[in-house]
Amino acid sequence: MNRRFPVWAPGASTVSLVIGGGDSGAEHVLTRTDGGWWQLDAPLPGDAPLDYGFVVDGDGPHPDPRSLRQPHGVHELSREFDPSAHEWADGSWRGRELTGAVIYELHIGTFTPIGTLDSAIARLDHLVELGVDAVEVLPVNAFNGEHGWGYDGVLWYAVHEPYGGPAAYQRFVDACHARGLAVIQDVVYNHLGPSGNYLPVYGPYLGDGHSTWGASVNLDGPQSDEVRQYIVDNALYWLRELHVDGLRLDAVHALHDERAVHILEELATRVDAASAELGRPLTLIAESDLNDPRIIRDRARTGYGIGAQWDDDVHHAIHANLTGETTGYYADFAGVASLAKVFDRGFFHDGTWSSFRERHHGRPLDADIPHTRLVAFSQDHDQIGNRAVGDRLTATLTQEQLAAAATLTLLGPFTPMLFMGEEWGATTPWQFFTSHLEKELGEATARGRIAEFAKMGWDPDVVPDPQNPETFERSHLDWSEPEQQEHARLLAFYRDLIALRRTVPADARATDIVADGDVFSFTRGGMRVLVNLRGNRLPESAGSTPDALLRFGDAVRVAPAG
Amino acid sequence: MNRRFPVWAPGASTVSLVIGGGDSGAEHVLTRTDGGWWQLDAPLPGDAPLDYGFVVDGDGPHPDPRSLRQPHGVHELSREFDPSAHEWADGSWRGRELTGAVIYELHIGTFTPIGTLDSAIARLDHLVELGVDAVEVLPVNAFNGEHGWGYDGVLWYAVHEPYGGPAAYQRFVDACHARGLAVIQDVVYNHLGPSGNYLPVYGPYLGDGHSTWGASVNLDGPQSDEVRQYIVDNALYWLRELHVDGLRLDAVHALHDERAVHILEELATRVDAASAELGRPLTLIAESDLNDPRIIRDRARTGYGIGAQWDDDVHHAIHANLTGETTGYYADFAGVASLAKVFDRGFFHDGTWSSFRERHHGRPLDADIPHTRLVAFSQDHDQIGNRAVGDRLTATLTQEQLAAAATLTLLGPFTPMLFMGEEWGATTPWQFFTSHLEKELGEATARGRIAEFAKMGWDPDVVPDPQNPETFERSHLDWSEPEQQEHARLLAFYRDLIALRRTVPADARATDIVADGDVFSFTRGGMRVLVNLRGNRLPESAGSTPDALLRFGDAVRVAPAG
Repeated sequence: MNRRFPVWAPGASTVSLVIGGGDSGAEHVLTRTDGGWWQLDAPLPGDAPLDYGFVVDGDGPHPDPRSLRQPHGVHELSREFDPSAHEWADGSWRGRELTGAVIYELHIGTFTPIGTLDSAIARLDHLVELGVDAVEVLPVNAFNGEHGWGYDGVLWYAVHEPYGGPAAYQRFVDACHARGLAVIQDVVYNHLGPSGNYLPVYGPYLGDGHSTWGASVNLDGPQSDEVRQYIVDNALYWLRELHVDGLRLDAVHALHDERAVHILEELATRVDAASAELGRPLTLIAESDLNDPRIIRDRARTGYGIGAQWDDDVHHAIHANLTGETTGYYADFAGVASLAKVFDRGFFHDGTWSSFRERHHGRPLDADIPHTRLVAFSQDHDQIGNRAVGDRLTATLTQEQLAAAATLTLLGPFTPMLFMGEEWGATTPWQFFTSHLEKELGEATARGRIAEFAKMGWDPDVVPDPQNPETFERSHLDWSEPEQQEHARLLAFYRDLIALRRTVPADARATDIVADGDVFSFTRGGMRVLVNLRGNRLPESAGSTPDALLRFGDAVRVAPAG
Repeated sequence: MNRRFPVWAPGASTVSLVIGGGDSGAEHVLTRTDGGWWQLDAPLPGDAPLDYGFVVDGDGPHPDPRSLRQPHGVHELSREFDPSAHEWADGSWRGRELTGAVIYELHIGTFTPIGTLDSAIARLDHLVELGVDAVEVLPVNAFNGEHGWGYDGVLWYAVHEPYGGPAAYQRFVDACHARGLAVIQDVVYNHLGPSGNYLPVYGPYLGDGHSTWGASVNLDGPQSDEVRQYIVDNALYWLRELHVDGLRLDAVHALHDERAVHILEELATRVDAASAELGRPLTLIAESDLNDPRIIRDRARTGYGIGAQWDDDVHHAIHANLTGETTGYYADFAGVASLAKVFDRGFFHDGTWSSFRERHHGRPLDADIPHTRLVAFSQDHDQIGNRAVGDRLTATLTQEQLAAAATLTLLGPFTPMLFMGEEWGATTPWQFFTSHLEKELGEATARGRIAEFAKMGWDPDVVPDPQNPETFERSHLDWSEPEQQEHARLLAFYRDLIALRRTVPADARATDIVADGDVFSFTRGGMRVLVNLRGNRLPESAGSTPDALLRFGDAVRVAPAG
C-alpha cells in the first residue's frame, strides 16, 4: 500500500484525497509530480486499510482507477488492500504450460449456488477428478451491480466484492495451485462498462473511436503511454501479486492501436519478461475474431507473440455439423468439409468468403504455428449465453452427439476448453444476466437484448429479461445433476477422454482426416478417432477392432491407428 | 470501352444510364448481374465517345465511379475514353528501379505557367539535364474546381481535365519515357474530397470511421471486397494503361483496415504480379507517418512488401538543423544528433518519445531493410505548402546551406527526392490553394486554414486565402530564375551532386557518421561528405585535400574517403 496515494490526472488543476470511514470527510490536497501524477507530500500514518477516493477539480470523490477493492460497489470509495498480506501456500507451484492443457471455463457467480470464490474452492476437487489442467474464470474485476458476466468491468484492478474481493481471490488461486490447477483469468482491456467508469474524470483513458460497447480505449493517441501502462500494470498485477498463471484477453479485435508496437506485442513482451523473472510460465490467450496469425506468431517472426488464441471457427464447424444450425455465422460452416478444414489447417476463414461479414476474411495460419496455440471448444460462455435463451447443446443433441462433441474437442489437435457443467451434460441454461443499479440502464439493456433477437425472429416473451433476478438464478449449475445416471455416464466419458488425451503428445496434429457423410474421423498421436455426427452407429470398419481404446455407445470410437 | 456500361450499385433497386450530348436525355435501364453489378443487356452501338451518367434509384445522373474523363468537372457527366487509342512510342522502355533513383516531385498546375501536362512536356529536358531518374506528379485525378493540390480527388480513375485529361497524360508519360524518365503518380486512397463525391449514392464505399479529412474508406466492413477492388483496379489502371512506373500512396496511416490481409499488402501483391506480367519494375511508395517497418518489410518476412516509404524523420532532422526551427514536430529534432541517428538507422522515432504526438512513437527499422527503401528530401509539397506562407528553404537559408541540404539528400543513403524548383533555389512560394466551386465550402476551407495557423500565433492577414486566385498564381515556378547567376550556380551544383551520386552504388549505407558542432560528415561509397550546417567554413581537416570531388564554397566538401 502506497500511503502517498499516487494517482494519474494529467489535465487536473487540483486533486485531493478523501478519506472515508472513521476519518470521514478528511480531505488531503495532493501535489503534482512527474508525468501528470499526483500524490501526498508525506505518507499517511498507520496501516489499517482506509476507505478513500479522489476529487479531481472539484469532481468526486470517485474511486481510485487502480483501486484493489470496492467494498461498497463501483460508485463508492475504494478500500486499501495489501496483496502481500496473504500467506501463500503455493511455494512449490512451478506453473504450467497452458498451450495443450485442458482448460475449464467457469463463472464464479453461477458455478456454485452461493456464487463466491470461497464456495468455488469447495468444488475444485470435482475438476481435479475430471482431470483438467486449468480453470479459466470469467472476469472477476469490479463491475456495476451484484451479478453479471463481468465484461462490464470498470475498475480493472479490483476483485468484484460480491465474489469475495481480492483476499478471497488469493485463497482461490492458492487452492487451485494446491490441487495442481493453473488459473487463467479473463481480462477486458477493449472497453469499459456503461456505469461506474470514472476514468475520464482522471485522464484521457478513452479515445475518439467507438467500439461495439462504447468509447474505445486510447492506445495510440496523445498521452496514451500511461493508458498502455495502466493495462500492462494490470496484467502484471494479476500475474505477480495474485499468482495467476494466464490471462484471457477479451475481444482483442476491438483494441484499436495503430502504433508500430501494438499493445498486444507490448503486453506479451512484458509478460514474457515477468515469466522469466518469476521462473514460471505465464500465458496470454487472445480472444480474436480476426483470423490473423500475427497475433500468435512468434515475435522473432514479427508476430505479437501471444501464446494462444481462441478459434471460433472450430466451434462453428463442430456446432453447425452437430446441430444442423446454419443461420448467422454458422452459414459458411454447413457441411462436414468445414470440420475437416479446421482440423487440418486451424482456421476455416483463411481468406475465404464470410457470408456473415459480407466480405472475405482471414488468412492461412503459418504452417509452423502449433495447433495448440488455438483454443477450441464445443461450448463456451458466449456461444451458450449469447443464444436467445442461453441453451446448451444438451437442449438439442443426443448423449451420443454430446459425446462426439467432447471427443472432437478433447482428442483434437487444439488446446481444449470446456464450459462449466458441460462435462455432465448440464441441462441448466446459461443466460445473459445483468443487475445494473440504474433503472434506465437496466431497461435499456433488456430492451436492446430483446430487440436484437426479435430481429432474428424470436418472440420477445421468450427472450429472458437480463435484469430479472430469475434469469441469473436459473443460470446456476445444478450440482445434483452429475449424480444422476445419464449425466454420470457422460461425466465418466469426459474423464476417460481427458485421461486418454494425456497419452498423446499435446502438440500432435490431426492427420488422415476423413469426412464421409455423417462420419468424421482423424488420426492423432497413434489414435484413430471416429465420431458419427448424427449420433448414429458408426460403420464396422477401420478402428472397430475389439481393442478400442474408448467408445461411447456405437457413435464414438477411438482405436489404435492401424 | 465497355458499351454495356457496367456499374456497381449493390443496394440499388433501379439503375439507369443517361446519355448526354447528341443523344441528350436518352435513358437506358440497366439489368442487375452478379455481385451487385448492373449493366445494359446489349452494348450500345457505335464507337464515338459518349457523355454519360447513372441514375440510382432516381438519384442522378451522377458520374461513373470509374469514369476516365470528366470534361465538364466532377459534378457533370462522364465521357467515355479509350486508353488503347494512344499510339505509344515507349516500346523500348524497360522501366526503372525506383528505390535508389533520384525523384523529382512536381505539381502539373504550377510547374509551368500554363499548368498543363502538355506544357510540362516542354520542360522535361530541364529534368534530363539535371539528371533525375523519375518525375513524381502530385495527384492528377479529377477534383473539384479548376486548380488545387489534387488531394481532394473524387473520381480516382479520371485525369483532371484542366491538366489536359487522360490523353494528355498518356502523351506526358510517353514523353517522359522517351527521355528516360520514369513516372511516379501520387494516388490518394485514404479519403475523398469534400465536393463531388457521389460514391455513397452507388454503394458502401465509405466506412463508419472518420479520418482527418472526412469519412474513411470502407476497407474491412460489409461489402468491402468491391471497395478494395476499386482501389486495386485503379492502381493497375495507371500502371497498365497509362504506363506509369510507380505510385506514391498518400497517407497510408489513414487507411484503416483490420483485415488479416491489409489493403497495402493486397495492393503490393497485385502490383508485383503485374510487374512480372508486364516485364518492367513497378514500385509502390507509401507516405507513412507510422514509423512501422512492416510497411516496407518483405512479404516473405510477413511485411506488406511496399517498395519504399517516405521518411519524414530525415526531413525533420535536416530542416531543424539547418533552419534552427524547433516548434511543433521539429522539437524532438533539435540538435545534430537527430541527423546522425537518421543517417545511421533510418528512423529517428524508433520507439522514442514524440513530444508532438505526446506519446512514444515508432520502432527500429529492421537491420536488413535497405535505406533506399526510405525516400528522403529536404523539401516537398507538404513541408513547403503546409507552412503558413508556403515559403521554401530559400526564404531562410543561405546558398551554402541550400547546398548543404542538397548534399545531405543527394549523397545520403536514401532514395532522394527534390521538389520542383528546389534545384535552382526557387524563390517562389508554394502555397495551399483551392478553387472550390461552392462559395460556402471555399470560405470554410479558407477559415479553417487561417484558424489553424492563428492557433500557432500567425497573423490571419499574413496567411494566404487558398481560394484567392493570386495564391495559386504566386505558387507557379518562375522559369527565368534558373537563368540568373546565383540560381544557375546552385543548379550546376545539383547537377554535379546527381552525377557524383551515380558513381556510388545506390544501396551504399552511410558510415563513420560524425556530428561535431555545426559540422556533419559521413562516408558513403568511398566518399567522405562534409557539410557545415550553418553554411560557414569547414575546418581544414580530413577531406580537405586538393583532390576534392566536389565543393560548394567552403561549406560543403566531398572527397575520396581516406
